[in-house]
Amino acid sequence: MRYRKESDSLGEKQIPANAYYGIQTARALDNFPITGEKPHPELVRSIAIIKKVAAKANAEIGLLDSSVAAAIKKAAQEMELGMWNNQIVVDTIQGGAGTSLNMNVNEVLANRAIEILKNSDVSVSTNSHVNMSQSTNDVIPTAVHLTLLKMAKGLCASLNALHEQLVIKENELDDVIKMGRTHLQDAIPIRLGQEFGAYACVIKRDIARIEQSTQQLNKISIGATAIGTGLNARIDYREKVMEFLIEETDYPLETAENLVDSTQNTDRYTEISSTLKILAINLSKIANDLRLLSSGPLTGFNEINLPARQPGSSIMPGKVNPVIPEVINQISFQVIGNDHTISLASEAGQLELNVMGPVIVSNLLKSFTILTNGIDVLSEFAIKGITANVERCRGLVESSVGIVTAINPHVSYEVAAKVAKEALVSGKSVRSICLQEGHLTEEELDIILDAKEMTEPGISGSVLLKKTVGIS
Amino acid sequence: MRYRKESDSLGEKQIPANAYYGIQTARALDNFPITGEKPHPELVRSIAIIKKVAAKANAEIGLLDSSVAAAIKKAAQEMELGMWNNQIVVDTIQGGAGTSLNMNVNEVLANRAIEILKNSDVSVSTNSHVNMSQSTNDVIPTAVHLTLLKMAKGLCASLNALHEQLVIKENELDDVIKMGRTHLQDAIPIRLGQEFGAYACVIKRDIARIEQSTQQLNKISIGATAIGTGLNARIDYREKVMEFLIEETDYPLETAENLVDSTQNTDRYTEISSTLKILAINLSKIANDLRLLSSGPLTGFNEINLPARQPGSSIMPGKVNPVIPEVINQISFQVIGNDHTISLASEAGQLELNVMGPVIVSNLLKSFTILTNGIDVLSEFAIKGITANVERCRGLVESSVGIVTAINPHVSYEVAAKVAKEALVSGKSVRSICLQEGHLTEEELDIILDAKEMTEPGISGSVLLKKTVGIS
Amino acid sequence: MRYRKESDSLGEKQIPANAYYGIQTARALDNFPITGEKPHPELVRSIAIIKKVAAKANAEIGLLDSSVAAAIKKAAQEMELGMWNNQIVVDTIQGGAGTSLNMNVNEVLANRAIEILKNSDVSVSTNSHVNMSQSTNDVIPTAVHLTLLKMAKGLCASLNALHEQLVIKENELDDVIKMGRTHLQDAIPIRLGQEFGAYACVIKRDIARIEQSTQQLNKISIGATAIGTGLNARIDYREKVMEFLIEETDYPLETAENLVDSTQNTDRYTEISSTLKILAINLSKIANDLRLLSSGPLTGFNEINLPARQPGSSIMPGKVNPVIPEVINQISFQVIGNDHTISLASEAGQLELNVMGPVIVSNLLKSFTILTNGIDVLSEFAIKGITANVERCRGLVESSVGIVTAINPHVSYEVAAKVAKEALVSGKSVRSICLQEGHLTEEELDIILDAKEMTEPGISGSVLLKKTVGIS
Amino acid sequence: MRYRKESDSLGEKQIPANAYYGIQTARALDNFPITGEKPHPELVRSIAIIKKVAAKANAEIGLLDSSVAAAIKKAAQEMELGMWNNQIVVDTIQGGAGTSLNMNVNEVLANRAIEILKNSDVSVSTNSHVNMSQSTNDVIPTAVHLTLLKMAKGLCASLNALHEQLVIKENELDDVIKMGRTHLQDAIPIRLGQEFGAYACVIKRDIARIEQSTQQLNKISIGATAIGTGLNARIDYREKVMEFLIEETDYPLETAENLVDSTQNTDRYTEISSTLKILAINLSKIANDLRLLSSGPLTGFNEINLPARQPGSSIMPGKVNPVIPEVINQISFQVIGNDHTISLASEAGQLELNVMGPVIVSNLLKSFTILTNGIDVLSEFAIKGITANVERCRGLVESSVGIVTAINPHVSYEVAAKVAKEALVSGKSVRSICLQEGHLTEEELDIILDAKEMTEPGISGSVLLKKTVGIS
Repeated sequence: MRYRKESDSLGEKQIPANAYYGIQTARALDNFPITGEKPHPELVRSIAIIKKVAAKANAEIGLLDSSVAAAIKKAAQEMELGMWNNQIVVDTIQGGAGTSLNMNVNEVLANRAIEILKNSDVSVSTNSHVNMSQSTNDVIPTAVHLTLLKMAKGLCASLNALHEQLVIKENELDDVIKMGRTHLQDAIPIRLGQEFGAYACVIKRDIARIEQSTQQLNKISIGATAIGTGLNARIDYREKVMEFLIEETDYPLETAENLVDSTQNTDRYTEISSTLKILAINLSKIANDLRLLSSGPLTGFNEINLPARQPGSSIMPGKVNPVIPEVINQISFQVIGNDHTISLASEAGQLELNVMGPVIVSNLLKSFTILTNGIDVLSEFAIKGITANVERCRGLVESSVGIVTAINPHVSYEVAAKVAKEALVSGKSVRSICLQEGHLTEEELDIILDAKEMTEPGISGSVLLKKTVGIS
Repeated sequence: MRYRKESDSLGEKQIPANAYYGIQTARALDNFPITGEKPHPELVRSIAIIKKVAAKANAEIGLLDSSVAAAIKKAAQEMELGMWNNQIVVDTIQGGAGTSLNMNVNEVLANRAIEILKNSDVSVSTNSHVNMSQSTNDVIPTAVHLTLLKMAKGLCASLNALHEQLVIKENELDDVIKMGRTHLQDAIPIRLGQEFGAYACVIKRDIARIEQSTQQLNKISIGATAIGTGLNARIDYREKVMEFLIEETDYPLETAENLVDSTQNTDRYTEISSTLKILAINLSKIANDLRLLSSGPLTGFNEINLPARQPGSSIMPGKVNPVIPEVINQISFQVIGNDHTISLASEAGQLELNVMGPVIVSNLLKSFTILTNGIDVLSEFAIKGITANVERCRGLVESSVGIVTAINPHVSYEVAAKVAKEALVSGKSVRSICLQEGHLTEEELDIILDAKEMTEPGISGSVLLKKTVGIS
Repeated sequence: MRYRKESDSLGEKQIPANAYYGIQTARALDNFPITGEKPHPELVRSIAIIKKVAAKANAEIGLLDSSVAAAIKKAAQEMELGMWNNQIVVDTIQGGAGTSLNMNVNEVLANRAIEILKNSDVSVSTNSHVNMSQSTNDVIPTAVHLTLLKMAKGLCASLNALHEQLVIKENELDDVIKMGRTHLQDAIPIRLGQEFGAYACVIKRDIARIEQSTQQLNKISIGATAIGTGLNARIDYREKVMEFLIEETDYPLETAENLVDSTQNTDRYTEISSTLKILAINLSKIANDLRLLSSGPLTGFNEINLPARQPGSSIMPGKVNPVIPEVINQISFQVIGNDHTISLASEAGQLELNVMGPVIVSNLLKSFTILTNGIDVLSEFAIKGITANVERCRGLVESSVGIVTAINPHVSYEVAAKVAKEALVSGKSVRSICLQEGHLTEEELDIILDAKEMTEPGISGSVLLKKTVGIS
Repeated sequence: MRYRKESDSLGEKQIPANAYYGIQTARALDNFPITGEKPHPELVRSIAIIKKVAAKANAEIGLLDSSVAAAIKKAAQEMELGMWNNQIVVDTIQGGAGTSLNMNVNEVLANRAIEILKNSDVSVSTNSHVNMSQSTNDVIPTAVHLTLLKMAKGLCASLNALHEQLVIKENELDDVIKMGRTHLQDAIPIRLGQEFGAYACVIKRDIARIEQSTQQLNKISIGATAIGTGLNARIDYREKVMEFLIEETDYPLETAENLVDSTQNTDRYTEISSTLKILAINLSKIANDLRLLSSGPLTGFNEINLPARQPGSSIMPGKVNPVIPEVINQISFQVIGNDHTISLASEAGQLELNVMGPVIVSNLLKSFTILTNGIDVLSEFAIKGITANVERCRGLVESSVGIVTAINPHVSYEVAAKVAKEALVSGKSVRSICLQEGHLTEEELDIILDAKEMTEPGISGSVLLKKTVGIS
């Protein structure tokens, strides 16, 4: 392997001769052989966009030579298209608050710009030109915001598709009457469609929460430079760079209300991560329910069937497991753990900067990715193909003692409790005991114990039977 | 001690003769000797309000005898005033999703109503009368929402007071120029007021987040009964109880969009808890900063002074510690841990109900309480009395090498780096090196190195010095 | 209310005239109105013991006047018996690393000692006498260790009782053959006793883990004073105080290997808390299993019955819920959350001291308390009374397709998979298909499909049927 | 791209023609496009070892044709050497408790074995041959144990190297007297070497904890098959496979005491993960200290210098940041978050199996990897090159008021407090005030205020100055 020599204020170092990156990247490779994971391509793309518009803005206000600016812009456009992803090699977890990543990009762009300009005698500096009017501390957070805005859009699209599938099931399974369970114990009747309607409803709130938190991400700090005071970023630069960034991205970006605050506080990250955590909790609950409802087939609840996706066992022939809900649980646990890491790192911010940015960003991007992937799989491979075991569901309602609850308002809780006890002991039905003991007439029982009525009082009028309950 | 006997479907049990509570409370005392903590008085008060309006609604629609209703209402009013707090004795952490708490209230109110009605021959039943048209699963969550609405109001009031103090300091300390630090290393100048302004800003976002999440709490599920299908709660009851509850509380309450969803999902709790967690993270960061900035006095940063609140040591005379920020850190850690418990409990919901409600509520109420208390202390005993060591701050700026950053745009990063290196090695000032090496003139340096200008470029025009940086 | 005036280096303050505590306690009451919770009586007791032996040691080496020492010892003995609990009033969460608690004790003991000595003209100083040779930073951690040692003993006793109940059930239910479930799907047969045996086994490991971690708590830092260098604690004092403390407590205490380390690091707390967290996870899993196995009765697994502990619902007559496992889940979530708080606080230690001690200790003591209480309840009110639905369990095994796994080694997985498929489609038994298709003889099937044999291969010899499986 | 067709009990599917993996892997690729991360090579290696010894054992007891066994062994050896890593393509997070990973290996080995045997007419079955006597539920956990044993060894080696560096610094910096800080406030003198000694000490406990927990990993469950009952694994197979596994790995492996327990409980994972979490907390505290002690140089503590590893800023010339400690903090936060995920997944185990294994294992392996990598970097790039600013340290001690603590035992806390106050107000030294006020003689002060003596009382005898302190 051939090398070239580069030097910086700390001394000299050998760099692979054909590398576009330079000495600061090489130092970072030495310093941070931690996870082996490289920066997310979407994040690199966002940084490239910023470098492009910064060069344009610097040229526009007369600070940057226009040929240098043009070369940087061309190099950045190539990076935006993913051409230089193999040159962005620093580890995702790195000390230095992202300086290594910013400098990795700066070095690649400077070297590529020099290449572009090779027949001119203009030079291109990583710090003075590519990084002109910028600091890691405004570039990286701005890039992260852009990346998260895009990822949030993708996640919400996946969530909307999930919501749609759940609503389809809500309607499709609306006639399946079944026993509800609280405490995993027999409760009172409900319709299977209502259960899916509840899932649809909570997912809708998740979408709203994510969209709400995402709005905060439109507030960016480009121009804040090192500590939010904007040192070295001229006011006209700040105006131009924001204008070009909006043009480029089409997001309703605006400068954060207080750049010192924005540079040091990471609550916009903890906020969006919290919404992902809440989503994860809700998804995990849904996954748990799906696994319970489809449990069995013989020894479980067996009310619904999940689509069979793969043989379930290397040793048990014929076994099929709820692998999609299971992977949703695991994704959820990962997202909750990631949120924890993000919280810890956020709390560790000190004074003018939170230097723990890299681990925050790494976890946040991963959470978005695995949630989006998992939700797509959940919609397509689980929810869409769910079917109900209608007879099984109905049978459990009909033989249940739990329906005794419906007679409470008409005979008092105390009398109903006696009926329940007798039903459990004797095996007789609630209906027959009520008739036998003269608590209610056939006509009353027809209305009161109508299964569908019990799932949505008011349909056939049971709740309109007026009766004042007295206790002897 | 004297006892009376009571019985329920599980058999007979002795109850202290003078207890207003009854057999179900007694069973809960046996079953849950866990924390020794009793339900929060505000929660009891909220349940009492619900029992009162439910009795009123049930009477209004003709289901409940008006004298019984009147007695229940009177008893509930007494409970609302705190008269029966000593009778609400079940543990805050309990199995059964809050049934023990609901029945504890039902029993006390029934027995007290019987007492009130003692010369009549009307009896009052815990389940059939006091709990009429209700279930634990709609009463307790509704009561929790009412309680949280009140607590959130209190917390926001405290946060607003904190915000006000921070803004006062922002203004008061606006002229104190000091070195900013990133990575705990000397960075570039900032004004102390700007630091307090950043704290004010993040706290303002916290207030907005809490208020936003609180809106969700106005959506309540009273009338949902056991599993959200509303079984045994007549439609006219639901209308009346909501009407009376709004009258009673003055909150803009409304029925949640899907009661099956609302009965089983706890994301409104995880959402509000997440906002508290984010607040805790932000407060802890501020507390850490205050402790850093006031560290010393001799061996630390010593830029600000916190009010002395108590002698700091049992062994070291004269020591004074930053005890208020320290207690804020601890409160924050507790709130973050509580959020964790809430997340775990929320994920554990199954099917029609989350039976882990009690531990969620207990932690949520504690988080609100300790945050509110802590923030009051922080405002009054720490922020309000902060003073700056102006000379120390100025001195550090003047002898700093970090100000070299300001010359970057005028001489290039590369030249500035050489100046920095020489300054560190030789001990000469950045200014004198620049002059000596001919990089900049006195006039230029006056503008560029003006300390205040460096903290807010544009004030005196440094950023308007147009100069295209070229690299040789 | 009447007051007396006291003063310290920060100035004067009014103290309730009859309070034994003094000005530092009063300042702490002002500064920390946070949780409303007072220090745990066991912790107060442990501090009292230390004060007693410290006075004795200081007298023994000639530093403390023997009459003063005697008075302090008497006062401390009274405190040890709980007589002054009402005077220990500082909040459990407090800034200052426990100084307020230590000074609260010092003040009460000094004032009580003065009272004891009232006819003498010897005075007693909180700092110079009661706190002689001590610092908050060695007294409080040592007291916490003593407290935890006692609590760990109590927890292990409760765990041993739980283990015993589980072993009883393991034996009692050893003959109940049932279907095992993996992924909540029908798997292969197991005996109910084996399931309880597995619970017993994991609890045994929990006991071992707690005992192992507890050994670290025998290493204490008394004599380390402020930062572990032992300043102001004479070597002969350190020897005496350790000797007396061992005498007093009967624990195998020893001085930690490095007192600077012991003063600043809290890993002994995070370690013991981690063992509690692991226990909590294991208990929660057991609780989940118990709730699953007892689910129904009609619509669930219904393999076991938990003792009925209380009516389950205010609205659904006859409902009985698994309230004891449910409270175990909630305790577990609390303990896991507490561990999280402890981790955060432990990470926040800086340099010579972790000032977040109070929140660590508060959470640790609570975790011990609620685990011990919960485990007692679990043993007595749940495990002890569990019964099996033997017929239900047997029926599920007999009609299961899952037993097809047992024929794998004799016919190949591929053939077994076909048998399984046919059994599921046709409703025929695995046995009859095997016979019909000529895969195995009646004699072979008798051995291979023997239910008990399937739960513990080797009993009747199925695993000795030698057959090399070839695939066509 | 060319395809071949394969079928299983769920139907037909196209597989890339040149893939060694088969239909179950292909289904897993469809089902789990989650993280994009492939199984850890060390884990694949461990599974290969198990497949190898299982084939050997099955042949030895006469169940598996010896030529088939030989081919599987050869294929497995190749996999062990990493030759087939590119064929192990399932996602690290997958539903199905690891079945997809186990089947991926089975399919690759079967196809490779068929290739090896290509001129014979023996066929090789993934389930009947490669997976003979095995289940995912014993193979994967056993493989994980083997992998963790290796990784733990690596981590402990890195920790031992760190410990050694810390001890070197402890000795090297033993003479550097400096002020200790508690609450970030000036406390009393300590030697810099003592601080590094404390770090060494806590790391030593971490090593012991990890080694202790690792012992549990020697208990493996191979032979347990699906649910721990050992169905389809003959007793002689179990003996042989264990014998061969010990031979192969040289670990002191033994069969877990209860295989039903071992199959369903994951506390051995939560235990080892907890020890990593505790290590992470301790490392983060050390990293925080290093960043504090090296803060500045001008505006911070500036007591030590970390080796400069890279330019610290893209905008601030000359800035050097503590990037190595910063990456340690981030690694620590990641490990703590991973532990959280592991805890959640562990709690989610149900009945005979914890199906959340994949996410547990993925996080555990990552925690080991990043800790080991980070610790190597910390030792080499930070600790090893630390130097002290001896003069600065000494100067802070000499001008400190904190040393007043040392006179306490000789003049009483009360008098010392007055001296402290006067020193702070007047700027006079503690020594001169004591002399002036006649509290102590020059000779006494020479002994008492000897700086080194203060850091380790007893060296020069100050603690032997006998003086009974009386309070006037």
